[in-house]
Amino acid sequence: MSERDPNTEPAIRTPVQRLADSVLSQEDWIASEAPLEVRIGNTPMTVLMRTPGNDEELVRGFLYNEGVVASASEILSIGPSHLSPEDVGGSVINVQLAPDRAQRAPDRAFYSNSSCGVCGKKTISTLEVKGAIAKSQLRIQRAVLEDLPGRLRHAQTTFAKTGGVHASALFTADGGLVALREDVGRHNALDKLVGWALETGKLPLTEYVLLVSGRVSYELVQKAIVAGIPFIAAVGAPSSLAVDLAQRFDLTLVGFLKPRSMNVYSRPERIQS
Amino acid sequence: MSERDPNTEPAIRTPVQRLADSVLSQEDWIASEAPLEVRIGNTPMTVLMRTPGNDEELVRGFLYNEGVVASASEILSIGPSHLSPEDVGGSVINVQLAPDRAQRAPDRAFYSNSSCGVCGKKTISTLEVKGAIAKSQLRIQRAVLEDLPGRLRHAQTTFAKTGGVHASALFTADGGLVALREDVGRHNALDKLVGWALETGKLPLTEYVLLVSGRVSYELVQKAIVAGIPFIAAVGAPSSLAVDLAQRFDLTLVGFLKPRSMNVYSRPERIQS
Repeated sequence: MSERDPNTEPAIRTPVQRLADSVLSQEDWIASEAPLEVRIGNTPMTVLMRTPGNDEELVRGFLYNEGVVASASEILSIGPSHLSPEDVGGSVINVQLAPDRAQRAPDRAFYSNSSCGVCGKKTISTLEVKGAIAKSQLRIQRAVLEDLPGRLRHAQTTFAKTGGVHASALFTADGGLVALREDVGRHNALDKLVGWALETGKLPLTEYVLLVSGRVSYELVQKAIVAGIPFIAAVGAPSSLAVDLAQRFDLTLVGFLKPRSMNVYSRPERIQS
Repeated sequence: MSERDPNTEPAIRTPVQRLADSVLSQEDWIASEAPLEVRIGNTPMTVLMRTPGNDEELVRGFLYNEGVVASASEILSIGPSHLSPEDVGGSVINVQLAPDRAQRAPDRAFYSNSSCGVCGKKTISTLEVKGAIAKSQLRIQRAVLEDLPGRLRHAQTTFAKTGGVHASALFTADGGLVALREDVGRHNALDKLVGWALETGKLPLTEYVLLVSGRVSYELVQKAIVAGIPFIAAVGAPSSLAVDLAQRFDLTLVGFLKPRSMNVYSRPERIQS
């Protein structure tokens, strides 16, 4: 039953004892979290702990963010491995890179990175963010911006079921929802979006607003910079390093976005009243 | 001014433009996020992106969870490096291990791990959780349990300022708060708690309830298992793998804990009505 398999379904049903005014034994949806092993030319590279769904996008976005590929054409093929899940204990995505990419000796430190933006880095000096915000003409009306969290929530199908996943979404300046991805890991949700953009030729994302359902930390701003996104809005709080990066790279960063209020930490001129 | 230094203070003040009924330019607190480089015998091992404060606890807990040390006595010394923050771009904690620990050739894969519980792992087969819940006699009254989120919130000083950090706290069965740690990373908050317990001789934590302010994923349950914690309660949702691990290792797992209701995913017999 697919409703029971967290390796393939974004949410599964599980028995739960609910204690409220009475005690009920029932079933409820929970968000799936399962490992995905990434292989390059059949060699294991890393494990991503993710919510199943859009796995190939996730891997594309991860490889782009890590600088392993710079364009869609450098990925010759991507897909589930022929290895059975029983053999490796889970799902495997295998990637074939273009010869010039594959021949470059991989940086050892890179090969131990995972999707959280900093993991695997061994020294602080390797944390430097590379990227630049292209000239962006993006402007958004404040009223449109304040409307986005409601639109996001309406479209979050897995969150509606489980209450247990983050979302990242791209909107146009007039509030149109372009793409939405959900995952137990906030960094994965954004990697899935970027992987989608890479595949569909939309990078750099200089004319879009990124809305995230939770807080904003270093890793999310770093990934936004690499993807060329000039505007991050968050329902939750930013960290100090998120604010610092946004200021240095000229991103607009909005936190605590609500229907009638928001905090703007950098570049407020992209918001029009 | 320490109010401006995210490398030493858990929260800092930052300029913000607040758009509400009027537009206010003011200052607000944001949660600090800054890299901490961990060195073993002056050799760089990993970088933890954390909220400053309790740094040595964080490193102790991280090393314990990763299996680098099994007891407090295996850490001969721990403290800030003599390197200046300017030289390495941030804070450094240097650890001297006991000779028999230090002599073991480190597993290369380990040395690339970071604090997120899975990062750096290259194959799914390395994810196996090692640990066993010791016989625990822990029982807690439902009314006491329902009271814990309120107690947690009252004690969360950095969250009260910033809205931007997670908390992990240990409670006794009668609802007494034993220790509380906050961090932008939920895994760090728990590592800090475990590091405190290691240092103060309280491991394994078989008679305590762990309360976390957010969701529960694989990494948190895995760390709880390693520390011998038999009971995890969360204000947020669990993931499928969290439920799976809790069931396999006989932990009680409670999600969506509120004053008048909760969901119990495993081992409900530790809750008494």
